[in-house]
Amino acid sequence: MKKAAPPPASLSDKLLRGDLMSVDCPSREVLRHITSRWGVLVLIALSQGTKRFSALRREIGGVSERMLAQTLQWLEQDGLVDRTAFAVVPPHVEYSLTPLGREAEQKVRALADWIETRMPLLGKRDPASRAA
Amino acid sequence: MKKAAPPPASLSDKLLRGDLMSVDCPSREVLRHITSRWGVLVLIALSQGTKRFSALRREIGGVSERMLAQTLQWLEQDGLVDRTAFAVVPPHVEYSLTPLGREAEQKVRALADWIETRMPLLGKRDPASRAA
Repeated sequence: MKKAAPPPASLSDKLLRGDLMSVDCPSREVLRHITSRWGVLVLIALSQGTKRFSALRREIGGVSERMLAQTLQWLEQDGLVDRTAFAVVPPHVEYSLTPLGREAEQKVRALADWIETRMPLLGKRDPASRAA
Repeated sequence: MKKAAPPPASLSDKLLRGDLMSVDCPSREVLRHITSRWGVLVLIALSQGTKRFSALRREIGGVSERMLAQTLQWLEQDGLVDRTAFAVVPPHVEYSLTPLGREAEQKVRALADWIETRMPLLGKRDPASRAA
């Protein structure tokens, strides 16, 4: 969501990401959902296709039922995840990425892959190990 | 940090990101720091060069002194941010990205730019607006 441009810097820079620095821009909320404790992992887990709640919970080590439900609800409200409920007993609910969700997943996967690859260097405090 | 491969899927997929799904992999901690409420914005703010604490705090709307200090400390411990304290009165402390931090910043900036660009579509619930 673009607002009237704040004091000049590079204008293109400001247009691209000036608003994430603004406390009242709605993009902050989306960033918070995607990068929430479980948001990144839910998006990545759904990149392989449609999954049931129980399958997601098994796959994402350590997530509680409550937090998984909350994260899926956020991502659904942002338009990143589709929720399909089947009228059967017991209830059967499936989740999948929307086209926008697939775009978001590519971005967070790039970050996740980088962390995995760089893990041996991360957390080391001597300068040599950081001059990667 | 790679562990012995879990049950097969695509092996390369598992090697790349299987461990982020594991509750006890240290990569989880780094992901949590980078994607913490202020981590993304601190990394982006430092991409323009070395900055003082007070300048960061002014730039990142809404961050408290305590949370900014905590976020900088996490990123410093992960090897992503360098902290330089000058022995003057009043104290003068500067922060900058390490080489690893610059790599991380590129990943989170790609996500932030995507959110900014897609903001007009995010949060809309009718299918047409999501078929981007």
